[in-house]
Amino acid sequence: MPTTMDLSHLLQDGGKIILFVWDGVGGIQAGASDVTELQAARTPNADRLVADGCGGLLEPVYPGVTPGSGPGHLALFGYDAVEYQCGRGALAAAGVGFDLQHGDVAARLNFCTLDGAGNVTDRRAGRIPNEECERLVGRLREAIAEVDGVEVHWTPVKEHRALLVLRGEGLGDGLEDTDPQATGVPPREVTTMDDTPESARTADVMRALLPKVRDLLADEEKANMVLVRGFAERPAWPSVTERFGVRAAVVAGTPMYRGVAKLVGMEPLEATNDVEKDVQSLVAAWDDYDFFFIHYKHTDKAGEDGDFDAKVHYIEEADAALPALRDLEPAALTVTADHSTPSAMKAHSFHPVPVLLSAATARRDGVTEFNEVACAAGGLGLRPSTHLMPLLLGHAGRLAKFGA
Amino acid sequence: MPTTMDLSHLLQDGGKIILFVWDGVGGIQAGASDVTELQAARTPNADRLVADGCGGLLEPVYPGVTPGSGPGHLALFGYDAVEYQCGRGALAAAGVGFDLQHGDVAARLNFCTLDGAGNVTDRRAGRIPNEECERLVGRLREAIAEVDGVEVHWTPVKEHRALLVLRGEGLGDGLEDTDPQATGVPPREVTTMDDTPESARTADVMRALLPKVRDLLADEEKANMVLVRGFAERPAWPSVTERFGVRAAVVAGTPMYRGVAKLVGMEPLEATNDVEKDVQSLVAAWDDYDFFFIHYKHTDKAGEDGDFDAKVHYIEEADAALPALRDLEPAALTVTADHSTPSAMKAHSFHPVPVLLSAATARRDGVTEFNEVACAAGGLGLRPSTHLMPLLLGHAGRLAKFGA
Repeated sequence: MPTTMDLSHLLQDGGKIILFVWDGVGGIQAGASDVTELQAARTPNADRLVADGCGGLLEPVYPGVTPGSGPGHLALFGYDAVEYQCGRGALAAAGVGFDLQHGDVAARLNFCTLDGAGNVTDRRAGRIPNEECERLVGRLREAIAEVDGVEVHWTPVKEHRALLVLRGEGLGDGLEDTDPQATGVPPREVTTMDDTPESARTADVMRALLPKVRDLLADEEKANMVLVRGFAERPAWPSVTERFGVRAAVVAGTPMYRGVAKLVGMEPLEATNDVEKDVQSLVAAWDDYDFFFIHYKHTDKAGEDGDFDAKVHYIEEADAALPALRDLEPAALTVTADHSTPSAMKAHSFHPVPVLLSAATARRDGVTEFNEVACAAGGLGLRPSTHLMPLLLGHAGRLAKFGA
Repeated sequence: MPTTMDLSHLLQDGGKIILFVWDGVGGIQAGASDVTELQAARTPNADRLVADGCGGLLEPVYPGVTPGSGPGHLALFGYDAVEYQCGRGALAAAGVGFDLQHGDVAARLNFCTLDGAGNVTDRRAGRIPNEECERLVGRLREAIAEVDGVEVHWTPVKEHRALLVLRGEGLGDGLEDTDPQATGVPPREVTTMDDTPESARTADVMRALLPKVRDLLADEEKANMVLVRGFAERPAWPSVTERFGVRAAVVAGTPMYRGVAKLVGMEPLEATNDVEKDVQSLVAAWDDYDFFFIHYKHTDKAGEDGDFDAKVHYIEEADAALPALRDLEPAALTVTADHSTPSAMKAHSFHPVPVLLSAATARRDGVTEFNEVACAAGGLGLRPSTHLMPLLLGHAGRLAKFGA
């Protein structure tokens, strides 16, 4: 079996699919706990779905490898995370929900501190707080909206980090970082790393832009300059519609997940991170799409906070949202995660994530509880997360027979 | 771990292997049924074999993808179905048991209807019945046995479909279809899709042949012409003897399965689709081969018919044939399927198939029943079907140690 397969010649019309991601829901038993968060939680709805369907474990990127949120979600969408890598600037744009267009060039900015001689003394400008970042971005936005016929978009990210997007004709992303990765030296000059006229044009724009930034921020005490990193265009990936034949929508209250879904062609629906409202948003659009990705954030946040009990609570909240989705009678309904976030580790982890698949065509496997241990004996086995999308398409009747 | 591995440097002499395929045996619980056909059937012999051996699940082509009979069997023989794709004409030849030789060019024929102006009015000639197809092929066979020094072989297939095989020196298969895929237009001219002299020569033969067909069938009311599709030579695949070091035989009463087995170098033994007689055919040739593929068709047929009870009945019939095979004391005996055919779906499906492997070298895994659910917990795990052949070779002592 190939690790990936072009399914385009097999696509046919079929039923609707819901992918409900309980972010970071996988856990471990650790310390005094005999159970994982999922084992501790009461999940009657997920338990019923897996009992009438089948369970398994998904491995997001590679054995032992801890996924970031981008790769973890891309794998669930059927995009191998190693094959589909996105430039840091474009991922940063997705992360803040910036609507990056084909032809835009995005880059990450670090506010930094220069001394009188123009040498970097702090590459992160003392990790200024978010409000300070927003104030500085406001100044830049007001003063520099255009350079040399190119639109300049500024967006705060977090602490000393911000996003720069250039929008105009004939731009390219073959530029080196200006971050010298060291203090006591000046920022690096803008240089290209390929010979295209697009990269040369973008380098000219940056050479005109950066002195304006320095002049503008000269009166700032800490953040008196920016370092630029990870120039990247929006990746030219085939959409889920092209690859899998589904019109797809995303319901995700957090910009990062909405952004990644948009990179593969999903259309954003209204979302708030209030799961009841988010489910209603999905229900309202039920007739308009074939595939729905709905994202639940709080489980991951509780895991990152190391709060076992909060994670259990949020798992139960997510479980309570399942009947409204089930009542839509999707051809295939799946609950899984982009990665594990054990509260015992306070971080993403490499552990496989449990998956349940509910469908009229599912083969029941005797799994009656939705958790990491029960699903390890499930009929879906242990697989790469990239297998989920073809499994969903198959169960929803969307793949024609291969060969005679 | 690579998905495929060249085993040729590891091959050594070892024990005999039997691959017993219960076609389409995998099922699902659906509707009122709490069990699959295999769970409902009494299979004391298969249960004993898996209890003394090990079980698992095999995925024939790719997750969610429903295999045709060709790809499903090729995968069991250790041939990745995506890598080993066979032209439609050659597969059609295998399907009717035509003994396609290297250098032959096969193509599929559709009988069609032309109007007075030579335009196609029905691409399938009203889906004529099989007897009509046979009569028409009889006329062609009698009138056109040779063109331009090339032998012409005609074989009926089903309804409006027939097989054409050209046999002679210097032929090639780089020809476009003449089927216009539309009505109201004439058949397409014969054209080549490569620049080889072999394809050009074959195009010349077809240009001489097709007017003869049209003249001959001019007096037919419906089927007064043929459309030609899927020109293909016999694929130049390495045989199972070359790849796996086994002299192999096939016992399959249905031409399709015998044909596919012959494409990978298995030699056909007498077969009738009467399982007792087919087992005796295998027993009679026991001393002459290392590897036996024996095919049982009725399970698939009952699944396609949507007849749960009939499928259960045929599973029990196949099970009853096992002792005679076990008594041969093969080094490895396996029972599995090319794909699932749940009677609830009346069609092939994408679900993994159960597998049992009985061998003195097998590691017992606690599985005591041969069905989809029990085997999901088996020691062989969930794997691509292409892993079966190396597992059989290993259990039969036919693979030397890799590395020091």
